[in-house]
Amino acid sequence: MTGQIDVAIIVLRQLATVPALSTLRVVALQNSKKTLLAQPGQALSLQDWKSQLENSSVSDLALDKLVSSLKELEASNQRHIAVIDNTSNDDVASFYPSFLEAGFSVVTPNKKAFSGSLDLFKAIEKANAKPYGPLTYQESTVGAGLPIIGSLNDLIVTGDKIKKIEGVLSGTMSYIFNEFSPAAGSSAKFSDIVRVARQNGYTEPHPGDDLSGSDVARKLTILSRLVPELADKLPEGFKSVDTQSLTPAGLAGEQDADTYMKRLPEFDTEFDQLRASAQEKKCVLRYVGLIDVEKNIIKAGLESYPADHPFATSLGGSDNIISFTTERYPRPLLVQGAGAGADVTAMGVVADLVRVAERRG
Amino acid sequence: MTGQIDVAIIVLRQLATVPALSTLRVVALQNSKKTLLAQPGQALSLQDWKSQLENSSVSDLALDKLVSSLKELEASNQRHIAVIDNTSNDDVASFYPSFLEAGFSVVTPNKKAFSGSLDLFKAIEKANAKPYGPLTYQESTVGAGLPIIGSLNDLIVTGDKIKKIEGVLSGTMSYIFNEFSPAAGSSAKFSDIVRVARQNGYTEPHPGDDLSGSDVARKLTILSRLVPELADKLPEGFKSVDTQSLTPAGLAGEQDADTYMKRLPEFDTEFDQLRASAQEKKCVLRYVGLIDVEKNIIKAGLESYPADHPFATSLGGSDNIISFTTERYPRPLLVQGAGAGADVTAMGVVADLVRVAERRG
Repeated sequence: MTGQIDVAIIVLRQLATVPALSTLRVVALQNSKKTLLAQPGQALSLQDWKSQLENSSVSDLALDKLVSSLKELEASNQRHIAVIDNTSNDDVASFYPSFLEAGFSVVTPNKKAFSGSLDLFKAIEKANAKPYGPLTYQESTVGAGLPIIGSLNDLIVTGDKIKKIEGVLSGTMSYIFNEFSPAAGSSAKFSDIVRVARQNGYTEPHPGDDLSGSDVARKLTILSRLVPELADKLPEGFKSVDTQSLTPAGLAGEQDADTYMKRLPEFDTEFDQLRASAQEKKCVLRYVGLIDVEKNIIKAGLESYPADHPFATSLGGSDNIISFTTERYPRPLLVQGAGAGADVTAMGVVADLVRVAERRG
Repeated sequence: MTGQIDVAIIVLRQLATVPALSTLRVVALQNSKKTLLAQPGQALSLQDWKSQLENSSVSDLALDKLVSSLKELEASNQRHIAVIDNTSNDDVASFYPSFLEAGFSVVTPNKKAFSGSLDLFKAIEKANAKPYGPLTYQESTVGAGLPIIGSLNDLIVTGDKIKKIEGVLSGTMSYIFNEFSPAAGSSAKFSDIVRVARQNGYTEPHPGDDLSGSDVARKLTILSRLVPELADKLPEGFKSVDTQSLTPAGLAGEQDADTYMKRLPEFDTEFDQLRASAQEKKCVLRYVGLIDVEKNIIKAGLESYPADHPFATSLGGSDNIISFTTERYPRPLLVQGAGAGADVTAMGVVADLVRVAERRG
């Protein structure tokens, strides 16, 4: 829902105001054009980094060059180095094993490395396995700053058995179905709601990119790979997830966003029918991600929920909600709140950085 | 709702099965009778610790002796030492500053140190402030393993402004009011519900200890002290919280639990009236803790919530629920799930220990 560039800016803004981070220093910044490196032993200013980066004489270093520059810069001390990847770039993601092998932790809201090929993910896991070594921190890859990845990791590392993970994991899908199928009922047209969502910037430029469900499939991949029983299940990552696209068959492949939007009303009746048959059962429609460990199911798609289910009543705006049903939590552990937006995404990144900073060195 | 001894046992059971904890060793165990110390450079067995502890020739060492024994034991290496306090003891709690000053982190579900006098809390905070130094880890002090303390800390450390914290924070109170005042209405008697809760072991031996609200007041103290604006507000800790006791005035001071329970039905009409006036407004009753930062209010008591509020619909069993309303989350961040029980309490402790173990040394 937001450009990744905003996240980078707000991460730096939050870092500048973090009170307790005497142990954390920013020593390099890079965007697609320039690289800014601190003087040895010094930190970059978090006040005027923007103009300094713009005026830097160093171009955008290749990542291997960046690694050697950082190593040189920090050679004289024993400090732990972390790379923050605020891009949504596949090339940066595929470089994580190299960062980790160089001894750098990786902190990122970028879903690509964790939701793509299993080979890349395995390489990252392997590099994460050294005692006291660097780690990847990825709280913001699902639900932005909400405590989702951390909670799932805590459940698993302490020996709980995950039975089911179910959630509304896309802010855009949440908004669309909270409006289209509220617990109190509605007669609003699907295409009208998507149009308003697009006008307000809640969708990608091409709404088909949201309605495809691939964002939800990526998040399911990320979560399922943390569950030991499912770790090897999705060889092609999000492409291996059973995903229901909400783009009507008659619009599939329509690349032009304006044409897509213009023709979407032709299919409103289909959506009306789905809603009506849910309403007959006193249910609402939600686009959810579902991981059923016992049944070995990982899928993204439309589901019906009774009108008094938390997914029906409690949800509003573009909130995410996720429920973990486990051996220890037969009544599920629920987390809900804004799951997209630069502020809350940056928060997840900075909170992860604080965890890095608390480590020694 | 559970004896603390269970938590200690389950912490050790979870630790024994934690896969990734090659960096974590248990080197000492202590209960109220005995102390068991590992051989230098060795770890204790997590399989037969019970008989080893029982047969240990070392009595329960005073805490200062324990500190020097641990220091001696670990003198030859650079490892980080953490003390786990699974008691609910005030004396152990008041020793935390000494543990921290000795360089040991403290991991605990014991609420006492964080909900008692402000002086003790300040001493702990001061000892926590050293860069890369030992820290207190206290996730399980509120909501057991639910991500509550961690989430609040993450919000604050990343610069969010907390506006309101509101929640059903006592599993016992949750059970009682989910039964007494469900969204669908009920005519059950208050005293009957308390009696069943007591029979099932959901209450303290004397139910007045739950109905006093002091457990909720302690949790509010713990949470409010993490909010910078409120850090100095409760000089006497939980005793300074505006707390509504549900023990009827006519039963106040009744020390004998059986007499208390026998006489409780005399007051059912009072509770019926409270429920009826909530039902008239289409509301349910919940015993909640409330922290309103802007209005400078910290209080525990009965409140009414509309029947479609998450506290009314979503809650069941003895679940806790907590909502954080902040500058970044104007629609609140919600966390819900079992908030008591040895398993989930131990989980919070072990997850905190894993965080300690990820730190270097």
